[in-house]
Amino acid sequence: MSNSATTREPAQRRIDASARLRTGPLGDLSDFPQWFAEHARRAYTRVEHVPLDALEGWVTDPATGDLRHRTGRFFTVHGLEVDHPGGRVPRWTQPIIDQPEIGILGILAAPVDGVLHYLMQAKVEPGNVGGLQLSPTVQATRSNYTRVHQGRPVPYLEHFLDIHSRPGVLADVRQSEQGSWFHRKRNRNIVVELPEPVPALDGYRWLTLGQIHELLHREDTVNMDARTVLSCLPFTGDGVAEDGRTDGDGFRAALRRSGDPRQASVHGTAELLGWITDRRTASDIVVRRIPLRELRGWSRTEDRIRHDEGAFFDVVGVRVDAGGREVRRWCQPMIEPVGQGVIAFLVRRFAGVLHVLVHARVEPGFLDVVELGPTVQCVARSYAHLPGPAPSPFLSEVLEAGPDRVRFDTLLSEEGGRFYHALNRYMIVETSQDVPDGHPDYRWMTLHQLSDLLRHSHYVNVQARSLIACLHSLYHGG
Amino acid sequence: MSNSATTREPAQRRIDASARLRTGPLGDLSDFPQWFAEHARRAYTRVEHVPLDALEGWVTDPATGDLRHRTGRFFTVHGLEVDHPGGRVPRWTQPIIDQPEIGILGILAAPVDGVLHYLMQAKVEPGNVGGLQLSPTVQATRSNYTRVHQGRPVPYLEHFLDIHSRPGVLADVRQSEQGSWFHRKRNRNIVVELPEPVPALDGYRWLTLGQIHELLHREDTVNMDARTVLSCLPFTGDGVAEDGRTDGDGFRAALRRSGDPRQASVHGTAELLGWITDRRTASDIVVRRIPLRELRGWSRTEDRIRHDEGAFFDVVGVRVDAGGREVRRWCQPMIEPVGQGVIAFLVRRFAGVLHVLVHARVEPGFLDVVELGPTVQCVARSYAHLPGPAPSPFLSEVLEAGPDRVRFDTLLSEEGGRFYHALNRYMIVETSQDVPDGHPDYRWMTLHQLSDLLRHSHYVNVQARSLIACLHSLYHGG
Repeated sequence: MSNSATTREPAQRRIDASARLRTGPLGDLSDFPQWFAEHARRAYTRVEHVPLDALEGWVTDPATGDLRHRTGRFFTVHGLEVDHPGGRVPRWTQPIIDQPEIGILGILAAPVDGVLHYLMQAKVEPGNVGGLQLSPTVQATRSNYTRVHQGRPVPYLEHFLDIHSRPGVLADVRQSEQGSWFHRKRNRNIVVELPEPVPALDGYRWLTLGQIHELLHREDTVNMDARTVLSCLPFTGDGVAEDGRTDGDGFRAALRRSGDPRQASVHGTAELLGWITDRRTASDIVVRRIPLRELRGWSRTEDRIRHDEGAFFDVVGVRVDAGGREVRRWCQPMIEPVGQGVIAFLVRRFAGVLHVLVHARVEPGFLDVVELGPTVQCVARSYAHLPGPAPSPFLSEVLEAGPDRVRFDTLLSEEGGRFYHALNRYMIVETSQDVPDGHPDYRWMTLHQLSDLLRHSHYVNVQARSLIACLHSLYHGG
Repeated sequence: MSNSATTREPAQRRIDASARLRTGPLGDLSDFPQWFAEHARRAYTRVEHVPLDALEGWVTDPATGDLRHRTGRFFTVHGLEVDHPGGRVPRWTQPIIDQPEIGILGILAAPVDGVLHYLMQAKVEPGNVGGLQLSPTVQATRSNYTRVHQGRPVPYLEHFLDIHSRPGVLADVRQSEQGSWFHRKRNRNIVVELPEPVPALDGYRWLTLGQIHELLHREDTVNMDARTVLSCLPFTGDGVAEDGRTDGDGFRAALRRSGDPRQASVHGTAELLGWITDRRTASDIVVRRIPLRELRGWSRTEDRIRHDEGAFFDVVGVRVDAGGREVRRWCQPMIEPVGQGVIAFLVRRFAGVLHVLVHARVEPGFLDVVELGPTVQCVARSYAHLPGPAPSPFLSEVLEAGPDRVRFDTLLSEEGGRFYHALNRYMIVETSQDVPDGHPDYRWMTLHQLSDLLRHSHYVNVQARSLIACLHSLYHGG
């Protein structure tokens, strides 16, 4: 029998004790750049653009024009036709990646001298700008673990299989990925706590959460998969507000109070759930799969599929030579965004409790119409050809903020296995503005309310999850 | 600002005070049969079977064989091809109803002399065996309120529109309906509490929850839509276990403890959520829409589409003459099940807390692969032609239980607007058995754990929700 109030120290306290430490029993990060550089010499990818017709193993379906692997596995690029009456663009077509398998993104945790550590991996992906990024312990598509790649087994994978009746599962939830680039893609985000650490293989390293948080502030270092898994950690809960330390302007204290369900919030949880129900019911989006060759306003040239106004993204082909634990060579299509985006939360204190301004966003690839996204999520260049107001009503409030209001500002990238050089500027900006009237798609929420929703699928989009991991990294100062 | 601990009496206590009263400030149910009978004389349907080709307003699509309304509205009957490797039947095709609109099922609540009352409606539907059933205040498809029927406006509908920033919303959540008969159908289940009652129109009546619970024990009286909305009421929560009254064998006390989150449970909530994630990831079901004429193992005769073994259900055509508030005549296809089903929860006490045995069920029409269903949900006749064991491993434990173990046993029907004479025997049966090894699809849950999941979409199927309403009706004795 289990009890809601466990006798063991609650998870949020054990997680917090680890978040506090930038120097742990295994040392600090002073040797990290050297460790990363050393591994980068041995694990690398050489990526070359190749024409879409020259992608070895891939075919253009003669009937539909869809790009698919000759085995039918991995993923397919097909077309989508979207009707969104009342939206900024009421009707459009676009290419999208279809990868129906649910992969595993898993982080192993274990106590070292009583402090939780997390086993992280230095991993290369072809789409990364800088090659290596800090990644979860395991990042496996189903093709990976059924061995379609015919590569070596995925290290540590066994810790994430058949886990549902095992103790120590801190998080286990399917979460969506980019709904503008993926059609209904979900990955299973898992954190498993072991009673004691397992040995770190070459290219893996046990880190405290404080160290991971420090790395999160370094440009393009912690990958998207790590960020989404970290956002699913149960780091909120009773007692999180109690810290005892003070900070200059009270931001950190307001943030920690935001993680404590005993603190007041602008909206009750029932009210927020009702709002989400309402937004999902109000939106009349209809999404239909169409053949890639039936896209309107997109053109296929020899080496890419691009939007006629140069907006959104291109579909490109790459050949990858990868070295490291195993030498492999393969070809694949990738999505290459046309510019750098801004992904930002506006945050504001209400009665001393920090709140986050979330946006009920429609993305065509979502399974359930709407998910909660960042206050601002856009690539400005994609909207340059459209008439009308700015792509987000809050973009200028974010970009024009003085440095004292900018709490987080780091270039981070999206997943480098499918997206080529997809860098975004992730920002957390404090504001004193409220939501203007006539914006039914925005609401103030506390961190514990968001964290409670993250126990379930399809509520919080991947960009907002990244920002939640970034917010958590400020629990003990920036 | 709102606080998790509201200063007002918590909703679960106000709901419970109403559930306790079978005689309220407006009297008791002694005149109910007369009220119902009187209304039945004025509100009736005459239903006649007609050939599928003679359904006025409906066409058989020449290309696909699908049955659809000539306007494209209301709903369509098309085909589904299901691949479910590892399932009892690994591959099949079937007809299914496609009704993509999200309707509203709403109950108005208001205090009468300080006791919450609920405004219920005596409503006829063509599929009902007995004509009238007790229904929610509002039961409206989107076609209803956009007036495709060209009928009169739906009474009380205004109380359920634009509600998301209003106080008094006790529940507001989209829930699935029959996943074997509907393709991804959801309705919005809403309970709105008004500061004071509005007048009850002819055919409507304010009742206490105790009175509705009493009616739930009468055969085929409370309709499915009312049951699902009632299951979404926040009737669990802190303090529900405290009652002060005793009952003979302690069943009622164990049930009330099951609604109190401070009591122990067999599995923690995180563990159960992980189990659901696991079941949803483990199931490889692939569902594909196909033309109705491509069904295999089903035949269309002049007056129905039926399974060649006489299993599952038929698609039939009816002509309806309805009298009542307005006189209307229309034709439509309906689903007619081939036999009466058994829908049952096994329940068991663990450390004095009642637990419910839920089944992680795959149904082809679910949006998200798996939902939690009853321990037993089957029409025995549908499996008579198949080799192998009983359709449910727990069917005999339910059907062979002695009367002292049967806590609820009433014939109730599914929705009479789409399903013709779809009666099921709803049962709650106490057991001392545990789940045998090798049944990873079953778990013991408390009522408050189920109730917490019911704040979200796509967790609990409609049959289990009916049973949860029935369980709640036992809070104050059967």
